[in-house]
Amino acid sequence: MSTAGQVIRCKAAVAWEAGKPLSIEEVEVAPPQKHEVRIKILFTALCHTDVYYWECKGYTPLFPRILGHEASGIVESVGEGVNDLKPGDHVLPIFTGECKECRHCLSEESNNMCELLRINCDRGVMLADGKTRFSINGKPIYHFVGTSTFSQYTVVHVGQVAKISPTAPLDKVCPISCGICTGFGATVNVAKPKKGQTVAVFGLGAVGLAAAEGARVCGASRIIAVDVNPRRFEEEFVNPKDYDKPVQEVIVEMTGGGVDRSVECTGSVQAMISAFECVHDGWGVCVLVGVPKKDDAFKTHPMNLLSERTLKGAFYGNYKPRTDIPMVVDKYLNKELGLDMDKFITHSVPFADINKAFDYMLQGIGLRCMIHLDA
Amino acid sequence: MSTAGQVIRCKAAVAWEAGKPLSIEEVEVAPPQKHEVRIKILFTALCHTDVYYWECKGYTPLFPRILGHEASGIVESVGEGVNDLKPGDHVLPIFTGECKECRHCLSEESNNMCELLRINCDRGVMLADGKTRFSINGKPIYHFVGTSTFSQYTVVHVGQVAKISPTAPLDKVCPISCGICTGFGATVNVAKPKKGQTVAVFGLGAVGLAAAEGARVCGASRIIAVDVNPRRFEEEFVNPKDYDKPVQEVIVEMTGGGVDRSVECTGSVQAMISAFECVHDGWGVCVLVGVPKKDDAFKTHPMNLLSERTLKGAFYGNYKPRTDIPMVVDKYLNKELGLDMDKFITHSVPFADINKAFDYMLQGIGLRCMIHLDA
Ligand SMILES: NC(=O)c1ccc[n+]([C@@H]2O[C@H](COP(=O)([O-])OP(=O)(O)OC[C@H]3O[C@@H](n4cnc5c(N)ncnc54)[C@H](O)[C@@H]3O)[C@@H](O)[C@H]2O)c1
Ligand SMILES: NC(=O)c1ccc[n+]([C@@H]2O[C@H](COP(=O)([O-])OP(=O)(O)OC[C@H]3O[C@@H](n4cnc5c(N)ncnc54)[C@H](O)[C@@H]3O)[C@@H](O)[C@H]2O)c1
Ligand SMILES: [Zn+2]
Ligand SMILES: [Zn+2]
Ligand SMILES: [Zn+2]
Ligand SMILES: [Zn+2]
Repeated sequence: MSTAGQVIRCKAAVAWEAGKPLSIEEVEVAPPQKHEVRIKILFTALCHTDVYYWECKGYTPLFPRILGHEASGIVESVGEGVNDLKPGDHVLPIFTGECKECRHCLSEESNNMCELLRINCDRGVMLADGKTRFSINGKPIYHFVGTSTFSQYTVVHVGQVAKISPTAPLDKVCPISCGICTGFGATVNVAKPKKGQTVAVFGLGAVGLAAAEGARVCGASRIIAVDVNPRRFEEEFVNPKDYDKPVQEVIVEMTGGGVDRSVECTGSVQAMISAFECVHDGWGVCVLVGVPKKDDAFKTHPMNLLSERTLKGAFYGNYKPRTDIPMVVDKYLNKELGLDMDKFITHSVPFADINKAFDYMLQGIGLRCMIHLDA
Repeated sequence: MSTAGQVIRCKAAVAWEAGKPLSIEEVEVAPPQKHEVRIKILFTALCHTDVYYWECKGYTPLFPRILGHEASGIVESVGEGVNDLKPGDHVLPIFTGECKECRHCLSEESNNMCELLRINCDRGVMLADGKTRFSINGKPIYHFVGTSTFSQYTVVHVGQVAKISPTAPLDKVCPISCGICTGFGATVNVAKPKKGQTVAVFGLGAVGLAAAEGARVCGASRIIAVDVNPRRFEEEFVNPKDYDKPVQEVIVEMTGGGVDRSVECTGSVQAMISAFECVHDGWGVCVLVGVPKKDDAFKTHPMNLLSERTLKGAFYGNYKPRTDIPMVVDKYLNKELGLDMDKFITHSVPFADINKAFDYMLQGIGLRCMIHLDA
């Protein structure tokens, strides 16, 4: 029996208050409206961005809320005007969208800053009517970045849904929807190290590891990972806490002048500054990826720029969510992506234990913890 | 009778103290040593960088000193090991060098950050022996950026000398040695606006005007000039003092989201920040050119970068001094450069009146004041 057009009652992990454990509740999920898709989420992982908006240190609080944005699932039903997706399609919801019509989506130079569907962490409602699709006994529960994947069913704007091959294993490709593309793309699409160049990666969570994998795929001769939490990493590892001087100085000395490229995947503004100041003058390129706090200021002496360094930011690895992601998944299936995906999923929990995933991330244990929504 | 190998006595404008008028003195100019060239300077202009190191506000004082770096002249004699220059050659001394041997000079990615001869504003002596070639009654007079062109004769490292066509009019090509290449190159080599794009230029001195000319040559559809001093400019002009809000907000509004490219040519860190924050998200590129003060900090919210803006610095327009400059002069002679050089030289004074050039620049009158060293 089809559930299309009906309210679905299912389990969701609701954040009632900043920093308090999520609680699994029965929620009501309204049917998708115009240009919306209702998705049965099978797998979701925790990305640090979820943690920031749950902790709400320096972010606007918006509760009760269903967090989650790194996920995979199957279309349950579609709203009016949705022509390129149908029930049963395998999909990745993406935290930022592609309307295919705005100046950004049509621009040759822009990648994924869609005017309509660009990430908005402060909005907790759907665009169509400014309301939520989630409720508990009539009380609205806010959305998060348009995805809210910590729910067995969620409603997402069609512009934020990438339709992927039905043969893709949904658990394995789940981190492609955020962490992997964000880090891998930051290196291969933006920092673009040339074969034989040196690359420093700041922060060795899933995003940073994907950035380092990107450097390996580009043929980097040396990859230096920097993290304040001692992390397993096969190549060189630098812990800023082991030195009395700024880590950028350590790296400049280690490399005789600086690395050719750096990619920051921490969210710490101090690490952003270090990542920029550790690239070689004359040609070094630094790419920022981490999500900063509201009041952070990136600060450097302008002479560091005048000596011909480049500073950029990368959002979702510069991938276009609907245009590029199906192709990234295909490349993974054809073993052409080159990155070792098995490294990313280090833990796995049933939905009821979702708070363990938060503990792991807060303690810096492992990388992605896969949450099984059906288990 | 050749003066080669002999000390030359000639006139030079000596800065004895920070901010005090230069005084024309008879100086002794020693013969060029190994890898050095002695040049008879015919024309020199004043660039704002000279003024900074004369005022010495926030720079290390080094006096007595002979300033000057935008100039043209003729080789008088060459030191040992100089094979590609001979007496009589027409040349432009350049404030930064190209040794053709170091990692930067040989790198595919670097442009002009030569390890040996990169600009050094704090060094007042020659590399060969750590001494000066200028003296007055045995008292050494310091050099400035290896050029010290406020002297009828000067000694320059061969790596800082561009040999140009003997048919080039030395007065007209003088500003190519600094201001014109710095601004023009920042736009055409680094900001690289595409045909039809919008460009904002901050600071409309000679450097900024050259940057705007570069935008015109690239086919910009709209050029917005920003200066705190009302300046003649044929296209759009914005004076930050006319608004209550930051000028970047004014430009973002004027352009429906920001300009495609911006080039900062002021040396003001506030203008650098405005230039960066006025470029469009998704694709905007800002290029910094102005020379900052020692304690300046470029500051911006990292989110301005994450929304896919690019920030770069350009030094000497990314031109390689010896490799590229002769070709730039040839293009000018063949009328292929596209920029209107006649706009740049607005004043002209005999050597004795060099302090007038300082007055003009401090008052923001005109652009370049050509100083005739033989007059
Ligand atoms: N721009 C985007 O599109 C995008 C997308 C996803 C995630 N992100 C951001 O990327 C960052 C990484 O995400 P993640 O899920 O991999 O997080 P994570 O917590 O798993 O990894 C971050 C790592 O950075 C390390 N770190 C923190 N401060 C540091 C410092 N000062 N120096 C060195 N290392 C430091 C931590 O120890 C940790 O290992 C977060 O800021 C996240 O919000 C950005
Ligand atoms: N990077 C390089 O290779 C290089 C080479 C030469 C000159 N420079 C630097 O370029 C800059 C320009 O040199 P110039 O000789 O054309 O100087 P200039 O004094 O002739 O022109 C600078 C202009 O900037 C304007 N200005 C100052 N502060 C401003 C602000 N906050 N907002 C808007 N406009 C402002 C001034 O009114 C002036 O018109 C200087 O900082 C100079 O040191 C850099
Ligand atoms: Zn994420
Ligand atoms: Zn769009
Ligand atoms: Zn100059
Ligand atoms: Zn060199």
